[in-house]
Amino acid sequence: VEHEIPDIVIGRLPVYLRELSRLEREPDRLTTSSHELAERLGISSAQIRKDLSHFGEFGKQGTGYHIHYLIDRLSEILRLTHEWPVALIGAGFLGHALASYRGFQRRGFVITAVFDSDPAKVGATIGELTVRDAAELETALRADGIQIAILAVPADVAQATADRLVAAGVRAILSYAPASLTVPPGVYVSYSDPVVQLQQMTYYLRPDDQ
Amino acid sequence: VEHEIPDIVIGRLPVYLRELSRLEREPDRLTTSSHELAERLGISSAQIRKDLSHFGEFGKQGTGYHIHYLIDRLSEILRLTHEWPVALIGAGFLGHALASYRGFQRRGFVITAVFDSDPAKVGATIGELTVRDAAELETALRADGIQIAILAVPADVAQATADRLVAAGVRAILSYAPASLTVPPGVYVSYSDPVVQLQQMTYYLRPDDQ
Repeated sequence: VEHEIPDIVIGRLPVYLRELSRLEREPDRLTTSSHELAERLGISSAQIRKDLSHFGEFGKQGTGYHIHYLIDRLSEILRLTHEWPVALIGAGFLGHALASYRGFQRRGFVITAVFDSDPAKVGATIGELTVRDAAELETALRADGIQIAILAVPADVAQATADRLVAAGVRAILSYAPASLTVPPGVYVSYSDPVVQLQQMTYYLRPDDQ
Repeated sequence: VEHEIPDIVIGRLPVYLRELSRLEREPDRLTTSSHELAERLGISSAQIRKDLSHFGEFGKQGTGYHIHYLIDRLSEILRLTHEWPVALIGAGFLGHALASYRGFQRRGFVITAVFDSDPAKVGATIGELTVRDAAELETALRADGIQIAILAVPADVAQATADRLVAAGVRAILSYAPASLTVPPGVYVSYSDPVVQLQQMTYYLRPDDQ
């Protein structure tokens, strides 16, 4: 069944999971409803029910969703029941911010290696990690069986770095470089470019709105 | 005509613009084609032609798109013909990375103010900016007519900060806080959460893929 789920539905599941985890931390909280999630997420309750129905019957009429059970199921669906090791490429300001971010580990990921090609950065420590020479990339990724990488390098070296990651077995890349990457089938890329995101909003702003 | 353009089309325009700007920097480069863009972006050439046709006739059969002209038109459509001032809220590691990022200015944005509520950070300098007390937020945003803000604060203060931004006239928020925000109609929010992006990809990975 699961391979027929539309990508757009899969895309919303982590957002549901994040909100459910927030609800779970509230004292004495056991259940929620599609209406409550809808209000918190700005997604219609019908959409939420429809999305979750792809994966079976989660809620009961009148009693809502059992939060802990739904978190467990979504974690299974998204393959978050074990922790994924992640390689971070780039130890600049952004690399530091990412390596210092505490939100990864409790949500299924742990940055296990940081690489940079700048000799001035190699050997430096970020938190508990030591920045390694990017020349060791392939050896290190293969040794640790790392399938996921975060790319925090300049645009002009992004494609060449991505090629090396893919050759070393990486299957999913989150790229912060402001450049489109070409990867073979079966490799997934997700982009984070603040300027693209801002430009997607300015279309809707009018200068006379002030 | 423009108000009928689907959001998903608007969402792709900044990606076209970014790639066109890269092409424009190549020596002796004047034109491109939907096929070349397709290959570089991983979007079908038919889709690219259809997207751009919403805004008039850009290309000529056989000669392709004039890069400089297309950049100008996309910049107009996305309202990037003047520079937008942007407020950055949060001067942690991520705030530093964003404030130091040189990619904003040549793509239509300039961070003009950085705020933090931590007394230890207020008064520090990041590049050419001095971190200001978040208590001054409303006054400063109104004085400068700032409509766009980047939120780089912890999840538990994200909603309260967003409420203050909206009350001070902000119409577009790019949020790095791992939390869904509720905003009134006419205010746009775009999210950047690395974990959500990673979780959207793990669904497609199989543990035995290694």
